Amino acid sequence: MNSPDPKQTPVSTEVHEPTLRTLIVRGDLGTAQEWERGHPPWEVADSLDRMEPKAAATAFRLLESEHALEVFEELKPSTQEAVLDVMRDQEFRDFVDALAPDDRARMLGELPSAVAQRVLAGLSPAEREMTATLLGYPEGSAGRYMTPQVVVLAESLSVASALEHVRAVGKDVETIYTLPVVDVDGHLTGVVSLRELVLAADDVPVSEFVVTDPPHVHATEPAERAARLMVDANLLDLPVVDPAERVIGLLTYDDADEVIERAETEDAARQGGSNAWAGHYMAVSVLKMARSRFVWVVPLLGVSLLTVTVAYGFEEALEEEAALAIFIPLLIGTGGKVGTQASSACVRALAIGEVRPSDALRVTARECATGVLLGVGLGLLAIGAGVIFADLSVAFVVGLSLLLICVLGALVGGLSPLVAKRFGVDPALVSAPVVTTVVDVLGLIIYFVVASIVLGV
Amino acid sequence: MNSPDPKQTPVSTEVHEPTLRTLIVRGDLGTAQEWERGHPPWEVADSLDRMEPKAAATAFRLLESEHALEVFEELKPSTQEAVLDVMRDQEFRDFVDALAPDDRARMLGELPSAVAQRVLAGLSPAEREMTATLLGYPEGSAGRYMTPQVVVLAESLSVASALEHVRAVGKDVETIYTLPVVDVDGHLTGVVSLRELVLAADDVPVSEFVVTDPPHVHATEPAERAARLMVDANLLDLPVVDPAERVIGLLTYDDADEVIERAETEDAARQGGSNAWAGHYMAVSVLKMARSRFVWVVPLLGVSLLTVTVAYGFEEALEEEAALAIFIPLLIGTGGKVGTQASSACVRALAIGEVRPSDALRVTARECATGVLLGVGLGLLAIGAGVIFADLSVAFVVGLSLLLICVLGALVGGLSPLVAKRFGVDPALVSAPVVTTVVDVLGLIIYFVVASIVLGV
Repeated sequence: MNSPDPKQTPVSTEVHEPTLRTLIVRGDLGTAQEWERGHPPWEVADSLDRMEPKAAATAFRLLESEHALEVFEELKPSTQEAVLDVMRDQEFRDFVDALAPDDRARMLGELPSAVAQRVLAGLSPAEREMTATLLGYPEGSAGRYMTPQVVVLAESLSVASALEHVRAVGKDVETIYTLPVVDVDGHLTGVVSLRELVLAADDVPVSEFVVTDPPHVHATEPAERAARLMVDANLLDLPVVDPAERVIGLLTYDDADEVIERAETEDAARQGGSNAWAGHYMAVSVLKMARSRFVWVVPLLGVSLLTVTVAYGFEEALEEEAALAIFIPLLIGTGGKVGTQASSACVRALAIGEVRPSDALRVTARECATGVLLGVGLGLLAIGAGVIFADLSVAFVVGLSLLLICVLGALVGGLSPLVAKRFGVDPALVSAPVVTTVVDVLGLIIYFVVASIVLGV
Repeated sequence: MNSPDPKQTPVSTEVHEPTLRTLIVRGDLGTAQEWERGHPPWEVADSLDRMEPKAAATAFRLLESEHALEVFEELKPSTQEAVLDVMRDQEFRDFVDALAPDDRARMLGELPSAVAQRVLAGLSPAEREMTATLLGYPEGSAGRYMTPQVVVLAESLSVASALEHVRAVGKDVETIYTLPVVDVDGHLTGVVSLRELVLAADDVPVSEFVVTDPPHVHATEPAERAARLMVDANLLDLPVVDPAERVIGLLTYDDADEVIERAETEDAARQGGSNAWAGHYMAVSVLKMARSRFVWVVPLLGVSLLTVTVAYGFEEALEEEAALAIFIPLLIGTGGKVGTQASSACVRALAIGEVRPSDALRVTARECATGVLLGVGLGLLAIGAGVIFADLSVAFVVGLSLLLICVLGALVGGLSPLVAKRFGVDPALVSAPVVTTVVDVLGLIIYFVVASIVLGV
């Protein structure tokens, strides 16, 4: 993307240039090294993430040492593990010591514990302490993602002395754009941006443009909530505090992006009815991928067996009126679709904060109304189909059932994510497959009950 | 979130404090105004987005003028429209003139044209020109989202004079953290961050730490691609250039966040099998919501009628072996689930760039293998169920069909998003309902064909 031609899509770029993976597989290491030199770290990292672990390790060894560190910090944990695996001890120690403390902590949290031990053992005491502190926060918390290096200012400083302080200590710090202001005990009292310092006159006191009572987050709070707050409030960085409200770090915009991208990918996997897996779609093993799907589809198959039981219970009715059977896929399929539409809308609205658990009543009313509208429209269409393929009474059964099933689908789909959230379960687990399975069983019961009543079978 | 107690969830906060909406509906405008004063602009905006249009307009009128502008820029376009609707002409003109040009252009692009005309007519000539330029870029392009106010530096400057320049022109500019470096004709040659300027010695030339050949984007390129690049490469801001590679703006991190959140919400709606709608889940009208779902579920109902046709064609077989009917929901339901799992994994991988259209062959191999693994496992379970509810030969038919249907589901789900992308269609449109519908029809055919061959019915 260095000199993009607007008419050139990423597709065509790829066709003309051999990929790093191709070069590595071919054994053309010289050209591979040249490729790596010509691409920014995040692009090299992306290429490594797409490879088999062994190839990724080979490609990593070709990097020059300074470049290697930057690439490493951009890698997915599973690729990081593959790369560390083939390093010699001294090389390994030097390398891990040079990583930023928050990147290291995050990596350690996801490595198998044997590898993690090896990493910790290789650290200098100061680095080990910093890493251990970050690791002390729960997985997925703001503390795990924050940078512990932060430039704080005293309230009493003038702009000139504040800038001097920033210059003195800012070199090794991840960001100097957001400067938390603290009292003598280190408690957060406000925030100043570097922008304001630079644009202000030198002799003005910092206190003149401090934003007091700034948004902040506790280290133990979920990182996702903090990241969403940053996006909603357009914050570049968010101060992280300990239980006594003392500043202990900053969550930066790129951490927030990473947190949100991970959360969205996890949500997408769950919404699709499978477990989220760690790693790249192209690199994760097929066995692992199958397992992440298997664990959901097997219990759902169990629940689906209820459809067999229900249909078995009505087998006589089916024998008496065989025409009933041919509408089963249509009815339960449509119910599942309406349910999926409602659930995915609600899961998304919950994720970005448009809907909160306390909105349950309004959501119920909205989804119920939507279900009735959809049900009436679709029911009339289904009656038409019923008349063509069977007779008027069966058509009426099909139409009425579809109306009821649509309302059922919209309600189940719309409310389940809220119920999940109330009970502390991730709403994204209310996936299309889950909603479909529930609506299948209940929809089939509705169909057969309506048929029994109307047709007397 | 100003002084969050880590043990307090957002749920409980809400129960104790009346919402702005409640206050407005009650007519308690004094307390409402106090509420607004006590909350940051983005929280007020979120509350307004959740209300009916009339209530939102009332709540907006209570804001003090400076606060109002900030709140307005955070509102969704549909709420902005409601608010503008009730303004008097002079108030309206002053207000629109004070908006940032990029916010204004984006708003104009989404307003009904009558309202947009009114907005444009009210602008001062200079502001109108700036807005018109932004509006000249296609919807969803980087040009629409960029800020046209950007501080550029000449290569030849020293750090001291560069900082002086930033101080002189930086006051009214959205960001001064990323400073594009240009040649005499305004062509982008590099980028310098304010961080480096502040930390460097005064007499050093800027050219010493310019990042040359920086990532950038053309104004007509899709904003989403630019935003993803920013996230991947951890960029705070991205220079936007015209066809001659002259700098014309900056895409800032908060623009990127907005672009991505919109794209993800649109993807989520499409993945759930409905059209994306503009506006807030809680505020959009039920009729609009039903319509966005109806347009998808009706054609899918049409396709689902094929299941009726297929079943109708095998009605004799169903009459001869009624036990076959009771497994229909189980078989096609499971196929739909496996398909959904595959499609959502692929759609997500495409969205974040893990999979590219050129990966089609590898995706086919991976999904085929995954389908076989799932199919063998599930097929064996289904044979067990078949033996219980029917006989061994029906059980064999059910198991074999399920294996084939799983492979079918994984392939249809995994490849359709790639095919869509190849033909320039948004892969997110390959939703659970679409995949399920296709797998329903093909799966039913597979089932009946297997049954015909094995049972000879």
